Amino acid sequence: MSSTEATDPTAADGRGGRLAELVAREGLDALFVGDLTNIRYLTAFTGTNAACLVGPDERVFLTDFRYVERAEAEVGEGWERPPAERDFVPQLAARMKGRVGFEDAKLSVRQLGKLREAVGKRAELLPAGDLVEEMRAVKDAAEIERIAAAAGLADEIYRWAIERGLAGRTELEVARSCEARIRESGAEPSFAPIVAAGPNGALPHAEPGEREIGAGALVVFDMGAQLDGYCSDCTRTFATTDPGDEAREVYELVRTAQAAALGAVRPGVGGRDADAAARVPIESAGHGERFGHGLGHGVGLEVHEGPRLAASSEDEIREGNVVTVEPGIYLPGRFGVRIEDLVVVGGQSNRNLSGLSKELTVVG
Amino acid sequence: MSSTEATDPTAADGRGGRLAELVAREGLDALFVGDLTNIRYLTAFTGTNAACLVGPDERVFLTDFRYVERAEAEVGEGWERPPAERDFVPQLAARMKGRVGFEDAKLSVRQLGKLREAVGKRAELLPAGDLVEEMRAVKDAAEIERIAAAAGLADEIYRWAIERGLAGRTELEVARSCEARIRESGAEPSFAPIVAAGPNGALPHAEPGEREIGAGALVVFDMGAQLDGYCSDCTRTFATTDPGDEAREVYELVRTAQAAALGAVRPGVGGRDADAAARVPIESAGHGERFGHGLGHGVGLEVHEGPRLAASSEDEIREGNVVTVEPGIYLPGRFGVRIEDLVVVGGQSNRNLSGLSKELTVVG
Repeated sequence: MSSTEATDPTAADGRGGRLAELVAREGLDALFVGDLTNIRYLTAFTGTNAACLVGPDERVFLTDFRYVERAEAEVGEGWERPPAERDFVPQLAARMKGRVGFEDAKLSVRQLGKLREAVGKRAELLPAGDLVEEMRAVKDAAEIERIAAAAGLADEIYRWAIERGLAGRTELEVARSCEARIRESGAEPSFAPIVAAGPNGALPHAEPGEREIGAGALVVFDMGAQLDGYCSDCTRTFATTDPGDEAREVYELVRTAQAAALGAVRPGVGGRDADAAARVPIESAGHGERFGHGLGHGVGLEVHEGPRLAASSEDEIREGNVVTVEPGIYLPGRFGVRIEDLVVVGGQSNRNLSGLSKELTVVG
Repeated sequence: MSSTEATDPTAADGRGGRLAELVAREGLDALFVGDLTNIRYLTAFTGTNAACLVGPDERVFLTDFRYVERAEAEVGEGWERPPAERDFVPQLAARMKGRVGFEDAKLSVRQLGKLREAVGKRAELLPAGDLVEEMRAVKDAAEIERIAAAAGLADEIYRWAIERGLAGRTELEVARSCEARIRESGAEPSFAPIVAAGPNGALPHAEPGEREIGAGALVVFDMGAQLDGYCSDCTRTFATTDPGDEAREVYELVRTAQAAALGAVRPGVGGRDADAAARVPIESAGHGERFGHGLGHGVGLEVHEGPRLAASSEDEIREGNVVTVEPGIYLPGRFGVRIEDLVVVGGQSNRNLSGLSKELTVVG
C-alpha cells in the first residue's frame, strides 16, 4: 500500500495485526517469527536476538537481557514483552498451542528439532512459507521515502565519483572511496560496490581489482546505500574515452531493453513477463545468450527481496513494490553493459528513484 | 594442530581429506556442505554461492557461472569442479547415494525439503552435526599467524585511538573513526566496535551513542579486525580521569578474574571449568550476579565460533584453539568493566595475541 499510515506501523495492531489476519487466513493459530529482518519490519527492533509469536490472540516479542533497554526504546506500542532468558525457545514453546506456523526458509533443521522437542504435543508445527516477506514486498509511503532517501544519497555519491574521474584510478580505489563516503554520510553500503572496467565488466559479479582503469573502456558501476535500515541499488555503465562503435551499439541496445522493461513493470504483470519484455530487443539483436541473469528484484530492508523479476519467477508485480530493472549484456573477454534503475510501482504510473542520466556518459 | 602444514590445506587431500575421514567415522558416505564459511575453510573459495560434497570417494565443489573464474583462481588443487547451474541442488542430489549427512544447524527446513525431493530414494539424508566447525576450532600455524596479524592491527588502532583521546569525544565518533581506520588498513571490523562510557558500559552490548564521554568515566572499548578472512577480538576498559576507588576496585577484581581464567585455559579443561575459574574471585567479592555472560568463545573465520567457554558449554579446550578470555562486571546505571584477551592454546603454554597493557590506563 502506498497510502500514508497515520499510526505507527510497528505497533502491535499495525503490521503485527495485518500479519495476524494472514496467519488466520492460512488456518494457523500463530506464526513463530525468528528472522531478524522480519522482526525489525514488524516491531522496529534492531538487536541481534529476538523472536515473536503472532496470531489473532497474541502479539508477543522476546529478547534477552542484553537488549531489554533497546527493546523498550524501539519496539512498537502494544507488543507484549515478557522478561526472557537468552535461550527463549522453551519460553516461547510454552505459549504455543494448536497449529503454529514457522518460517521454513529461515529456521534451520536443528532449530526446528529443538522447538519440536520443547513444544511436545501441545502444538503442531507447520511450515508457513514467507508471510512476512510477502507483506514486506509491498511498501508503505514511509518506507518508500526511506528508500528514496537512500537512492538519493547513492546518486550524490555517483556524481562525486564521476567528478573525481575514473581513468587512471584502480577499480578498487574508486569502489573503496565510494564506500568510505557512504559511511561518512551516516549510511552503509547495501553491498560492496562493483567497479568493473573493460573485460572485467563482462563478469556480472566482478570484484573490483588493482587494475588501473584505462582509456576507451566501459566501466560497470553498481552501488547502493542503506540508510535508516532501507537499501537502494543502482547501476550505470560509463565510458572513459570513446569506447568505439560496437560498445556504443551494445550500450544503446541495453538502454532500449531497459526502457522496454520499465514500461512493462506494472501492477498485475508477472515477474517473468517483465523479464521477457527486456529480452525481446536483446534477443532480436542476437545477444540473448549474453543476458545471463534475471531482470530485477525487490529492494527494501534487504537489497534482495521480493518480488523477483526473472524467467523462473512466479511472483506478480503489485502496486507498492520497489524493484530494480537491470538488464545487461556481457561479452566475455571484452566488456559488459548493465543499466539499473530502482522503481516504485504505482497505481497510475511508476516512480523512478534513480536520478542519474542514462545517456552514455564519458568520464575522464 | 599447531604444526606447520607444508602443503596447501585447501587442496582436496588437505582439510577435505581430513573431513572425509570424519565423515567415514560417522558412518556416512558423504557430507553435503552448504555453509559458505565452511566452504571457504575447506577450499579457499570466497564467493557467495557454492556447495561441496565430501566423502572418502569424492571431493566435489560446485558454484554457478558468475563465480567460475574466481573458483578457478581460489579453490585448492584436486577438487572436482564440474560446470553447474545457478541452482545446483538437483545436480548435487544426482551424485548422492547411501547415507549422506547435512549440516543441520545451517540447512533450512525448506532447503532440506528441496534436497529430499531431488534425492528421492537414492540416498538417506541425515543430520551430521558440526563436523567442519569442529575442525575449524583447532587452528593450524598459518591460521594462527593470520589471527595474530588481525590482532596486531587492532592493537595498533587501539593505540592510535588512545593517542587521540576519549574525553570530550562522543562514543560514536571514537567507534566510527576506528572502523574507518581498520578499513583504510585493508581490513574489515570483526563487528561494529563498542565504545561505552559510564552507565552505558554497564550494558554488555551497548551501541555507541551521541553522548559525549565525560571525565572520571570508565570506558568499555571492544574491537576487532578481520584481515585476510581471519578475525580478532579484544576489549579494554579505560578511565578518562581518576574514576574513583570503587571503580578501581572493580577493575582490579576483573583483572584478577581474567588472570585466573587465563591460567585455567589449558588443553583438556572443559569450557565450563575455565568459565568457573573466572567466577571464583568475582563471586567471592559478591558480584557473581553482575557477570552475566560467558567467559569466552573461539575466534577464526568467524568472530564467534567454537569452543564455547561458558557454564552451559560441553566443549573441551584443545591445543590449537584460539579463544577469547573476557570476564566482566556490570553495575546497572553506574559503570561496567570488561577485559578481554585473545589466546592461542598451546601444548606447553598459551600465547596471548593481545598486546595492550591491562593496567588501568587513564586516557585524557
